[in-house]
Amino acid sequence: MAPILFTRGAPSLDIIDQEGLRDAAQQAFTKDPGGTFAYGTSVGYVPLREWIAEKHGVDVNQVLVTNGSMQADAFLFELLVSPGDDVVVEAPTYDRTLLNLRQRGAKVTAIDLQTDGIDVDAFQTLLESGTRPSLAHIIPNFQNPAGYTLSAEKRARLLALAAQHDFVLFEDDPYYEVRFEGTPLPTMLSQDENNRVVYASSFSKTMCPGIRCGYLVGPADVIAKVQKIATNTYISPNMVAQSIVNEFCRSGRIDQSVATVRVALRERKDALVNALKRELPDAVYTAPQGGYFMWVELPGVSIEKLFPVAKEHGVEFVKGSDFLLEGGDNAMRMAFSGVTPEQIDEGITRLATAVRSL
Amino acid sequence: MAPILFTRGAPSLDIIDQEGLRDAAQQAFTKDPGGTFAYGTSVGYVPLREWIAEKHGVDVNQVLVTNGSMQADAFLFELLVSPGDDVVVEAPTYDRTLLNLRQRGAKVTAIDLQTDGIDVDAFQTLLESGTRPSLAHIIPNFQNPAGYTLSAEKRARLLALAAQHDFVLFEDDPYYEVRFEGTPLPTMLSQDENNRVVYASSFSKTMCPGIRCGYLVGPADVIAKVQKIATNTYISPNMVAQSIVNEFCRSGRIDQSVATVRVALRERKDALVNALKRELPDAVYTAPQGGYFMWVELPGVSIEKLFPVAKEHGVEFVKGSDFLLEGGDNAMRMAFSGVTPEQIDEGITRLATAVRSL
Repeated sequence: MAPILFTRGAPSLDIIDQEGLRDAAQQAFTKDPGGTFAYGTSVGYVPLREWIAEKHGVDVNQVLVTNGSMQADAFLFELLVSPGDDVVVEAPTYDRTLLNLRQRGAKVTAIDLQTDGIDVDAFQTLLESGTRPSLAHIIPNFQNPAGYTLSAEKRARLLALAAQHDFVLFEDDPYYEVRFEGTPLPTMLSQDENNRVVYASSFSKTMCPGIRCGYLVGPADVIAKVQKIATNTYISPNMVAQSIVNEFCRSGRIDQSVATVRVALRERKDALVNALKRELPDAVYTAPQGGYFMWVELPGVSIEKLFPVAKEHGVEFVKGSDFLLEGGDNAMRMAFSGVTPEQIDEGITRLATAVRSL
Repeated sequence: MAPILFTRGAPSLDIIDQEGLRDAAQQAFTKDPGGTFAYGTSVGYVPLREWIAEKHGVDVNQVLVTNGSMQADAFLFELLVSPGDDVVVEAPTYDRTLLNLRQRGAKVTAIDLQTDGIDVDAFQTLLESGTRPSLAHIIPNFQNPAGYTLSAEKRARLLALAAQHDFVLFEDDPYYEVRFEGTPLPTMLSQDENNRVVYASSFSKTMCPGIRCGYLVGPADVIAKVQKIATNTYISPNMVAQSIVNEFCRSGRIDQSVATVRVALRERKDALVNALKRELPDAVYTAPQGGYFMWVELPGVSIEKLFPVAKEHGVEFVKGSDFLLEGGDNAMRMAFSGVTPEQIDEGITRLATAVRSL
């Protein structure tokens, strides 16, 4: 019995536009062999940098294109986070961000994530108590791992707090384009009047992860400093890959790819919700309006105990506790991006059998 | 008048197999869309990792494929070099290596590079005086910036010293394949019986720089530790690019590409030597047997003064002093990889005019 994996936040191959990627490579390599095959500079492939700047309505020198958005995070943390610095994250949050911040020696404070985003009251109390974070890490849309989205009101409050208390608001937004329901909310970047926001996104969710192309948008002086770190790290990011991304974007292929992804993800989310209703009616969750993930709590069930039993039953997920400094004993992260509706249905059936066997 | 640039160690576009790269992309994307477009792991694209392991006659878990060999260096330094650590480099050496080691807070000792490689006697004296480097950085073939090659005898002595004094011998070897004259010497990696060598190379000089694909080969335990750093930095390197590289290698295109590059580089080296003989007969240099660079000294000429004047005359190079902790006042690095023989001839004519005008 092949295991059904709700573990990894990655798209299944059937929703990647393989033909479009092949075409984009041919076009890109033919149209601009010089820019594609030579060393570039650490700002990234220039036409793609321009496309991103236009998309976000910013000056081109506010953009840096990197080898995936995690590399962008790493550069930004190298610039802004020194050992002992206070840093604020959401609880739960992306496990790799947590790990990287702790490895840099940051004093990480995790503030509860509510279904409409981080608990801004608690954040404000922390700031008023004298904590001076250098950075707050926020995943505004369809958060990983919870799937929740930051409300418009909280976005405004965070911008005000960042301006007042002088910290960098790191808006980590890889899922923005993969909204399959509801109305998009403006980014904090687009509302930032005080140069406090640094924004990151990626093409992993709209093209494919293997292309490893992410980017930062922020104040020109911050971007210039990050650029220096990037130059010293790798001279230039992958020009071949970024040239393919550029062609994929400018040819309009990306719009079609995003449309495909949205339809598939909504079907998968629906399949997950329906299967849970049927198989595990006590499960607690808020169905997301986009993205890859749903946070599912099973009251009274020890996820620590469930985990190996579920595996024996052929279904895997990530334990909620992996995304928290403490707690999460009844919670799981269910990624629905890499499994078909049929697999989801079968997977939740297996999960329920595992729960009943405890 | 377009400037003639002897500055950058990069191939000109005419010696890059553009058609081969287009073909490789088509084949790679069609044969293995799963491996190409999905997240990989930080070891790199598995079939390419295997190809490299076979090429070097090592176990596959001794290989890690990265986003360019500079990124590989950065990972290795992060693992092995702590602030205050002694590190040995060649004088002159690659300016970015020097910069990165100093930024990590290493105590860098630069040992004279002779035409047959680093002054091993001086290195031995340093070791016997009690200095305990964690790492020695050696560019064995057609060194950047000097173009010199480490002799077989010195390779053996370095291996013995590394074993005796317990330091990592970092064999940084991007130019190995681009030998256009003479007989290849075995790598230190291939002669290492004490697990002291970590070897780095890249596809920048054999395919193209824009593909940003490098790799490390070393003891399995060291590679496992580097892999962990790589995972935390970027999850996985560029799978799309590495899949193209893999196809380019396995289809045999790479052999043809290397042959093209060798012929072109020999012609360019010859053009440089001939033009110098004619225009600047006092210039001192050792013509390289491969690679991109030649170190040229102009006795009695201040390169600091020559530099801006040469630029006015439409010819640019890198000052020797950029590759040294001190000295190099009469030296220049001439990169002949990115200029045609005709450009080289004209460039050296301009340079001679600039020298005479001082």
